[in-house]
Amino acid sequence: MSDDSRFRVALFGAGRIGLIHADNIARHPRLELTVVCSSRIESADRLAGRYGSVPTIDADRAFVEVDAVVIASPNSTHIDLMTQAARRGIPALCEKPLDLDLSRVRASAAELMDSPSPLMVGFNRRFDANFAALRNRVTDGEIGRLEQLTIISRDPAPSPEEYVRTSGGIFCDMTIHDFDMARFFAPDLVEVHAYGANAFSDYTKDAGDFDSAVVTIRGSNDELITIVNSRHCAYGYEQRLEAFGSDGMLNMGDVLPTTICKSSGQGTGQRAPISTSFLDRYSDAYVAELDAFVTAIETKAPVGPDYLDGLRALELAYAATESAQTRRSVQLSSS
Amino acid sequence: MSDDSRFRVALFGAGRIGLIHADNIARHPRLELTVVCSSRIESADRLAGRYGSVPTIDADRAFVEVDAVVIASPNSTHIDLMTQAARRGIPALCEKPLDLDLSRVRASAAELMDSPSPLMVGFNRRFDANFAALRNRVTDGEIGRLEQLTIISRDPAPSPEEYVRTSGGIFCDMTIHDFDMARFFAPDLVEVHAYGANAFSDYTKDAGDFDSAVVTIRGSNDELITIVNSRHCAYGYEQRLEAFGSDGMLNMGDVLPTTICKSSGQGTGQRAPISTSFLDRYSDAYVAELDAFVTAIETKAPVGPDYLDGLRALELAYAATESAQTRRSVQLSSS
Amino acid sequence: MSDDSRFRVALFGAGRIGLIHADNIARHPRLELTVVCSSRIESADRLAGRYGSVPTIDADRAFVEVDAVVIASPNSTHIDLMTQAARRGIPALCEKPLDLDLSRVRASAAELMDSPSPLMVGFNRRFDANFAALRNRVTDGEIGRLEQLTIISRDPAPSPEEYVRTSGGIFCDMTIHDFDMARFFAPDLVEVHAYGANAFSDYTKDAGDFDSAVVTIRGSNDELITIVNSRHCAYGYEQRLEAFGSDGMLNMGDVLPTTICKSSGQGTGQRAPISTSFLDRYSDAYVAELDAFVTAIETKAPVGPDYLDGLRALELAYAATESAQTRRSVQLSSS
Amino acid sequence: MSDDSRFRVALFGAGRIGLIHADNIARHPRLELTVVCSSRIESADRLAGRYGSVPTIDADRAFVEVDAVVIASPNSTHIDLMTQAARRGIPALCEKPLDLDLSRVRASAAELMDSPSPLMVGFNRRFDANFAALRNRVTDGEIGRLEQLTIISRDPAPSPEEYVRTSGGIFCDMTIHDFDMARFFAPDLVEVHAYGANAFSDYTKDAGDFDSAVVTIRGSNDELITIVNSRHCAYGYEQRLEAFGSDGMLNMGDVLPTTICKSSGQGTGQRAPISTSFLDRYSDAYVAELDAFVTAIETKAPVGPDYLDGLRALELAYAATESAQTRRSVQLSSS
Repeated sequence: MSDDSRFRVALFGAGRIGLIHADNIARHPRLELTVVCSSRIESADRLAGRYGSVPTIDADRAFVEVDAVVIASPNSTHIDLMTQAARRGIPALCEKPLDLDLSRVRASAAELMDSPSPLMVGFNRRFDANFAALRNRVTDGEIGRLEQLTIISRDPAPSPEEYVRTSGGIFCDMTIHDFDMARFFAPDLVEVHAYGANAFSDYTKDAGDFDSAVVTIRGSNDELITIVNSRHCAYGYEQRLEAFGSDGMLNMGDVLPTTICKSSGQGTGQRAPISTSFLDRYSDAYVAELDAFVTAIETKAPVGPDYLDGLRALELAYAATESAQTRRSVQLSSS
Repeated sequence: MSDDSRFRVALFGAGRIGLIHADNIARHPRLELTVVCSSRIESADRLAGRYGSVPTIDADRAFVEVDAVVIASPNSTHIDLMTQAARRGIPALCEKPLDLDLSRVRASAAELMDSPSPLMVGFNRRFDANFAALRNRVTDGEIGRLEQLTIISRDPAPSPEEYVRTSGGIFCDMTIHDFDMARFFAPDLVEVHAYGANAFSDYTKDAGDFDSAVVTIRGSNDELITIVNSRHCAYGYEQRLEAFGSDGMLNMGDVLPTTICKSSGQGTGQRAPISTSFLDRYSDAYVAELDAFVTAIETKAPVGPDYLDGLRALELAYAATESAQTRRSVQLSSS
Repeated sequence: MSDDSRFRVALFGAGRIGLIHADNIARHPRLELTVVCSSRIESADRLAGRYGSVPTIDADRAFVEVDAVVIASPNSTHIDLMTQAARRGIPALCEKPLDLDLSRVRASAAELMDSPSPLMVGFNRRFDANFAALRNRVTDGEIGRLEQLTIISRDPAPSPEEYVRTSGGIFCDMTIHDFDMARFFAPDLVEVHAYGANAFSDYTKDAGDFDSAVVTIRGSNDELITIVNSRHCAYGYEQRLEAFGSDGMLNMGDVLPTTICKSSGQGTGQRAPISTSFLDRYSDAYVAELDAFVTAIETKAPVGPDYLDGLRALELAYAATESAQTRRSVQLSSS
Repeated sequence: MSDDSRFRVALFGAGRIGLIHADNIARHPRLELTVVCSSRIESADRLAGRYGSVPTIDADRAFVEVDAVVIASPNSTHIDLMTQAARRGIPALCEKPLDLDLSRVRASAAELMDSPSPLMVGFNRRFDANFAALRNRVTDGEIGRLEQLTIISRDPAPSPEEYVRTSGGIFCDMTIHDFDMARFFAPDLVEVHAYGANAFSDYTKDAGDFDSAVVTIRGSNDELITIVNSRHCAYGYEQRLEAFGSDGMLNMGDVLPTTICKSSGQGTGQRAPISTSFLDRYSDAYVAELDAFVTAIETKAPVGPDYLDGLRALELAYAATESAQTRRSVQLSSS
């Protein structure tokens, strides 16, 4: 395959997620990492140097002569960069959340939902083989009508204090993935209730945030959805989902690195530890997401979650935040 | 062992649960089924005849010359029979719920909570080997501080229409077991939120009741408790519980009749069906409950759930019912 | 039920297995433990006293006025007691092995295989719910034609030195259960090969016995059967079986006391320990065996393993012993 | 990374395995697929064309100007190609078996075991993450002294008739992987016994070969090793291994594509199907094997299985074949 056939990509952001995208873009047979743009030139230099790309701090320049952009810069820059991409007709893949400010996301909705160039939002879990297979089996009717969905997500350890202070709170920062997953199974949700709790992290409490949460959601077909979250988990990065329907149940357990099971004087049937990082857990999902983005570039239509999905997830996060404060369930506007 | 050393028991009620208790009492090495009392003399006759006991429709007579009573008669008779037992100083084991009317239960609380003769309430799940072992391990600190509890209970099939109409609703009739289980792990609960849903049963909806529910509860130590219920379950009688703490997680799966696992062209690792009836699932728990009652008779103190536990579970059911109607979470009075 | 309808049973032997049978007989609604016979009068006294039975050291007397006998006395007495029972027309349940001397077992075969009164041999595993269910599913054709059978049996800890010296060797003492299980699935076996090994127990080696063994057997339909044995097992009393057929596989895992699974920093999904004693593991099987014996008494025909089964299992043990010594596989005479 | 730093590789063979190696070499950051050599020029053309490599039918030419060779040509050519590679000082990775003729393999042993250029044999399972992790844990002493090893390998479906006729028989063609795996855990084996069976495939029987086999092996430390093989398996490509030691057991189950478990009216806890092809099951292992080969090229020493391992596995296959014919166990010469 000649390099001519590769799409040239500009990457915005050279942080933790930027690194993942850079590596995946560079390895992808249909993509070429042309530009790396970061507000910190050393970061741009370092990452660009690794892949023979052009570093820049100039976003305008980054848009020139590329076929697509991947946006992994700070949240507050997402809307602007998506808007620029849309106006230039350049396909964009943007990390979640679209922004922490729901009013900004709503203000740009008219323009960005109608963008003729495809715009995808990085809810990477939709591209995970386990989540995707389970959802396909539900959609195919294998368990009949979907009645109850239980999502358990737990981080291995709380984020650092400085991150917590600017994260937008557990619902916008962490649960937002679970909100999108809920909508992956039941797109039309009507009512949200949330508890936040402070079980173990003092600095999270001091920041006015929760370290634990349980959110329950009602769908328009009376589906009952439960999300259980914790910011710590002694045994790793827990990501489970269970879909219960009229004809049966599909349960997705944690991913284990091997199939080895140990029996000893301490007990029988001990599995290996699960992964302790989202980078390990979702490394394949990031690659599959990029594959979907390539298809989106080629077909000029988003594949997977789009701007509306990003907006709806943020609305759910706001509703959960309100519910946790007011002790009432919150009705969602027609979604 | 001579029969002299056996405690003479009067059984009230000759229905489905009465049959279980009758058989367990008759087999118990420390008990003797002396009297069977039912408002329907044919039922009393039939059951008493099976075990050489005296049948009667006269409750007063049933209390004479017995050492203990087991109350499995209709809910509305429970308070009266417990009161009679207490006044006579006779130990009683009463089926749940204490009554469907919370005000009646509260009205008798002063007398029945202070009863010098032991009074136990039949929350049989506390005596199940799995639930009991898991709770002991949590109490022993094996997972550190308890932070989240997830209980999934699903009946194999909905109760008949006539039963539903007089059951008191899903929260008082079905979830009440889960409320008691929540209190088994976190006795002091402060806030309840509930969704009821009508996913599949028209006659349940017509009766003003729900066929599905999700209840979330906050404990006084910021424990977050989730209860997921359904009145049907394609794969059997589901009873699972998961306790998550600062140091780990204990997960109790469904009980299987064998350890056989099948692999075929349809897939690998298919387990045998779970039980489809609470009678199978909890047959050992009913026996263990009776063992505890014998200890209560001997020690003159309740072993396991008592009147207060029955009251608290009913308060939770009322709070859930209110929450499902008002779309607010309900604060519990100091418990 | 009146005691008149109970069968009166004499128990021979008051050792470890005798105790189990005594207790099960005493609890059985259709049996009455009338006599306990032991060569040591104190043992007979103690056991008989517990159940209101008559103790004796006189075997002849034990046979008088009983309806059935259970033989759990030393191996060398089994043939004589079975012969007496047969001549008196009294049904007998005899512990395995029939005898350690194959020639003695063969010499009595003509008389004891033709006995009009039922004679059962105590291969209790056939009555275990797991083994029985798996075998029924194989017999019902659920996995098509049976092609391979793998049996893994491991004792929790080696028998004491004095026991080993008189046990008859691992194949006659321990593997004999697995030989019978092999025949439960594939009654007609034609060729045996065995390895014995001395992996850990010096006194077992000094006694000329093995602490580990692997036996492979060919059936007349080219079934390939593998038995893996060890006299120790760090994680408990291991009893597994896997049947592989043309249409699939049925795998029977170890029995666990609960369904609880733990996840912690040490790993995820640790099951509870398995049982560490055959008394725990097979307590229900001993009861089911006695139920079958009652049916045998009533129907006057053995239910489950009979004298021929006892003979065939011992022949397999002899063949394995020979193979382990000669390094050849041993052909079995037509069975 | 500049292409200058890549090792130039010639690939011999353009069949099923050749395709895998070609693709992996082409994707490897340290390798370049320079030449594809096949006796059928169309095959060489097609494969070479895909990766911009030079096709040839001339083995001599293939050796010119390459840094390493990968040999995936017919078995009968392996020894010659390895010999040429060794004489030219070119590192070689050769597929198993070294040859079907043990005398040829022995005849070349002196030269090829002493080759200063590294020579690796393609026992790819040693590079599988599951097998490798389990073996490392055993080597690290996690289960104490290794006493018993059970390997269960079953192909999803029998090879075609024409393949069976030239395969060298089940022990040389299929079990050879398990023999190497046995030596991975217990390198020094002393005695082999084998049963072959004809359970289902008539043409395999007509070819004088077996469709099923059980091999038992004794190690020099009295380890007992069991290998169970079948040429068909209704539920996929089965690859399991269980290591039992003085302190515990490590069990490696089949690899599943997802962690999804289904419960329905047909039963509870059904896992997804296992893979049905060695290409799927071992795709990562082939990549890891190539990584090891790169290390071998760089360090000039084989990493993983070498010529001696290939010889020993073939000796075991011959011994098993002899045992299956003679009904005796076969002693191995000091290995």
